[in-house]
Amino acid sequence: MKKAVLNFLLMAIGFCVINSVHAQNNNEKRPNIILFLVDDMGWTDTSLPFGDAPAPNNKIYETPNMQKLANMGVKFSNAYAHSICTPSRVSLVTGMGVARHRVTNWTNSDVDQPTDAPYAGMKWPEWNYNGMSARQEYKNTVVATSLPEILRKSGYYTAIVGKGHFAAFGISASNPQNIGFIESVASDAIGNPRNYYAKDNFGNKEKYGYTYQRGVRGLEEYHGKDLFLTEVLTLEAMKVMDKALDLKVPFFLYMSHYAVHTPIMSDDRFYQKYIDKGLDPVEAKYATLVEGMDKSLGDLMNYVKEKGIGENTVILFMSDNGGLALNPPRKGKPFKENLPLRSGKGSLYEGGIKEPMIAYWPGVTKAGTKATQNILIEDFFPTILEMAKIKNVNTKQQVDGVSFVKYMKDSNLIDDSRSLIWHFPSNWGQGESTLKKHYEGMKVEEIGMGPASAIKKGDWKLIYFYGTKKVELYNIKTDIGEEEDQAKSNPKKVKELFGLLNQRLKEQGAQYPIDEATDKELLPVLNL
Amino acid sequence: MKKAVLNFLLMAIGFCVINSVHAQNNNEKRPNIILFLVDDMGWTDTSLPFGDAPAPNNKIYETPNMQKLANMGVKFSNAYAHSICTPSRVSLVTGMGVARHRVTNWTNSDVDQPTDAPYAGMKWPEWNYNGMSARQEYKNTVVATSLPEILRKSGYYTAIVGKGHFAAFGISASNPQNIGFIESVASDAIGNPRNYYAKDNFGNKEKYGYTYQRGVRGLEEYHGKDLFLTEVLTLEAMKVMDKALDLKVPFFLYMSHYAVHTPIMSDDRFYQKYIDKGLDPVEAKYATLVEGMDKSLGDLMNYVKEKGIGENTVILFMSDNGGLALNPPRKGKPFKENLPLRSGKGSLYEGGIKEPMIAYWPGVTKAGTKATQNILIEDFFPTILEMAKIKNVNTKQQVDGVSFVKYMKDSNLIDDSRSLIWHFPSNWGQGESTLKKHYEGMKVEEIGMGPASAIKKGDWKLIYFYGTKKVELYNIKTDIGEEEDQAKSNPKKVKELFGLLNQRLKEQGAQYPIDEATDKELLPVLNL
Repeated sequence: MKKAVLNFLLMAIGFCVINSVHAQNNNEKRPNIILFLVDDMGWTDTSLPFGDAPAPNNKIYETPNMQKLANMGVKFSNAYAHSICTPSRVSLVTGMGVARHRVTNWTNSDVDQPTDAPYAGMKWPEWNYNGMSARQEYKNTVVATSLPEILRKSGYYTAIVGKGHFAAFGISASNPQNIGFIESVASDAIGNPRNYYAKDNFGNKEKYGYTYQRGVRGLEEYHGKDLFLTEVLTLEAMKVMDKALDLKVPFFLYMSHYAVHTPIMSDDRFYQKYIDKGLDPVEAKYATLVEGMDKSLGDLMNYVKEKGIGENTVILFMSDNGGLALNPPRKGKPFKENLPLRSGKGSLYEGGIKEPMIAYWPGVTKAGTKATQNILIEDFFPTILEMAKIKNVNTKQQVDGVSFVKYMKDSNLIDDSRSLIWHFPSNWGQGESTLKKHYEGMKVEEIGMGPASAIKKGDWKLIYFYGTKKVELYNIKTDIGEEEDQAKSNPKKVKELFGLLNQRLKEQGAQYPIDEATDKELLPVLNL
Repeated sequence: MKKAVLNFLLMAIGFCVINSVHAQNNNEKRPNIILFLVDDMGWTDTSLPFGDAPAPNNKIYETPNMQKLANMGVKFSNAYAHSICTPSRVSLVTGMGVARHRVTNWTNSDVDQPTDAPYAGMKWPEWNYNGMSARQEYKNTVVATSLPEILRKSGYYTAIVGKGHFAAFGISASNPQNIGFIESVASDAIGNPRNYYAKDNFGNKEKYGYTYQRGVRGLEEYHGKDLFLTEVLTLEAMKVMDKALDLKVPFFLYMSHYAVHTPIMSDDRFYQKYIDKGLDPVEAKYATLVEGMDKSLGDLMNYVKEKGIGENTVILFMSDNGGLALNPPRKGKPFKENLPLRSGKGSLYEGGIKEPMIAYWPGVTKAGTKATQNILIEDFFPTILEMAKIKNVNTKQQVDGVSFVKYMKDSNLIDDSRSLIWHFPSNWGQGESTLKKHYEGMKVEEIGMGPASAIKKGDWKLIYFYGTKKVELYNIKTDIGEEEDQAKSNPKKVKELFGLLNQRLKEQGAQYPIDEATDKELLPVLNL
């Protein structure tokens, strides 16, 4: 029996050693998470078709790494964001619906500069035009507990590389290190780079210097070199991951490309072939922004493989709003850039909110699958927390997002009881100017812009326009181009969705456009 | 027997759980390290006497937290730095002697701007006036493996808060994140703040903006508030440590105060009492810089205690060169600010190089002890690596520093075979202008400035001046004020030290001042 005890002792010790090593690397059990977020990328700005049939753009753009990632994981064909950048980004890191966080339009890099354009007969509510905030500190900000803060506090190495645009300069969240990112590379209040070229110091006047507003900061060591911003951010992202690997802790990399946002500049590694394809030079430049971004994705995929962490690294691909359909700065047909989707960035039509989304979670997602569940950008918040095994979080805010982990596990699942809502109690002037130039006399509502709210439940989508007081109803499954308004023929569905939309807006504490004449909120009114 | 086995099983499991937790926190066995580095603080700028008898200043300044720290650990009474900031700081993070790294004078924040003042009949060598560098990238930089880089790669969370000043803007090391610091707060190429007040945006013209050169960067969220820079850096340091605690990894905090460097501004929390003591307003302001710095030390000591990491956190207190003795900007008697020490910052006399140093390593240092061993600032490099249990490091550079861990363990140990060397093949114009104003006709050598080298071994110190070709010899133990030059009376000691100094300078590859007439290096010549 002594021998048995000895054996047991040895076994126990052996177990302990294994367990000990395992425990030391306990964090490794939690996956690394790369959120690869593209700016202003449309649903069809890729060679990977997200629709049932390839879109015209799918034959133009070349994104082999997105194809590769989709082959490894799940492609989400009904993923949505909000129609403009800051609202989407704030929803993503707070989990809040846009009507709840009230950052309903894009934020200027200066404080106290609402970006709303005028709309006849209306005034705008006091929305959170200074963006989000880590604490009560200044007016017109939303105070929330952020995703990176929660991850960091639970032991994740958190970093943002690239575009922040969470708040105006001076508000805490304009420096992402104040909302939980340990590292913040080239990220602040600006929404787009002044210049993509390192040789032009990314728009900073002086080499090694910094120009207030819009010059990308923090990349001084690259100034004067022959590198494109997309490439530089990729190199920086690898440095970030190197550090997490040295610390032996899991990481959350918020890889936030400035591409493919304006200014439309040529990533010269890819320009000539798009000219050879017959594209207009401006559109060819746009295509290089897309392919440069895809190259970055491929580089990061290679990095995790080479470092031996590919099997424990989640990659989530997403864009923050629809593709830009304005001319200028684009050269294509205005509001037709995202065909078969209607309109583009700034619109509540599909072109403004439908996103190319891919999720790869080794050992969880199944290779080459496709999920059709409706997903909204605030869903990333609970999803990422679930992946990181973080439960029972106390947040300052009420979270509206719903985890999509189950759809990653089983892409065939569908929950048609889930509704997504959009809310834009404002006017995006940029859309109007393109309208005026190309379609004089046409109302912004015809491109899905102007003050509006929308809801999607299952295949059905309803949009309400505050200016025209009109509702439109579409079946997105059979009519992805939103050409056939079924509001008149299907009043039952209209009533159901209109009621639900209003209920959910109220729940989230929505602000509404204000009647200039009466000073009263213009609540949605159903006129069938 | 079944019960015995069961008991054993339970015990084994219990053991494993404990072991597992322990293993998970394996890094905790390595101490956290706070390097509390003050800028331009003199050896007597404290209420803690470092000499055998209290210095006049010891009765003026109030630094209760330094006293407290010294009561907890070891006070080093013969700790030295180089006479100017950048040389010291580069030695600290590279472990190299100043003659070896060749950053022999302070670096301008612009590239290619040597800071040397003229000296009749001499030219200056091509020293590394652009500072240190993480890689071969630009001329006149020293490429070295840095202390934070090694610590980071071994799993330490590394951060610098405050003054960097390792290199000119555009050189990689001007951003400390390029030399191994994960976080870099308010740290770049500048050597002093334009302004200490948050209400003045730390010298940045625009609120939330950034002024190229000298405005402290990265603290935009404090702009306009009623806070002093020293306090703000302390708050930021706590945020840094919070993060390391969340990640459960050990940290290296390079707490690098801009205080007590010029501009001499009032930290109003402490001003009135120094006026009440009868100090001139400028000197009273200087005293507030000192006490504000001490308050920061106390705050950090409280922080580690409150977080329960006091027993595993090393605190090292050090300054980077001697106290400023120029008038203006100071108001005291020129070159008498550091009595009993002779001269001040920029001098190879004790006033320029002797530093207030305290080391506290819980469980290792003995409370309230005093070590008299000669220590030089490059010694921090191997010391900190030893504390972090990092052995056999491959560095690009040869390390000249020697660990002082053994003197922390036993403060009575003395190694008189160790020699420290200083090398300044240049001229610091700032010293000259005070001379001219107050002591017209006096040579810079009389305040220990101008091109010079020095050596200290045991109690003996020899200084060689390249301009006058004169050697001076002092016994620092019996003549701390360097009033009695013993060169003539002790030629044997002069020869010994002069030979050793030259040998060590040669070993380090020293550059020498150049004779303008012959274009040849002015090697030291012994004329007894």
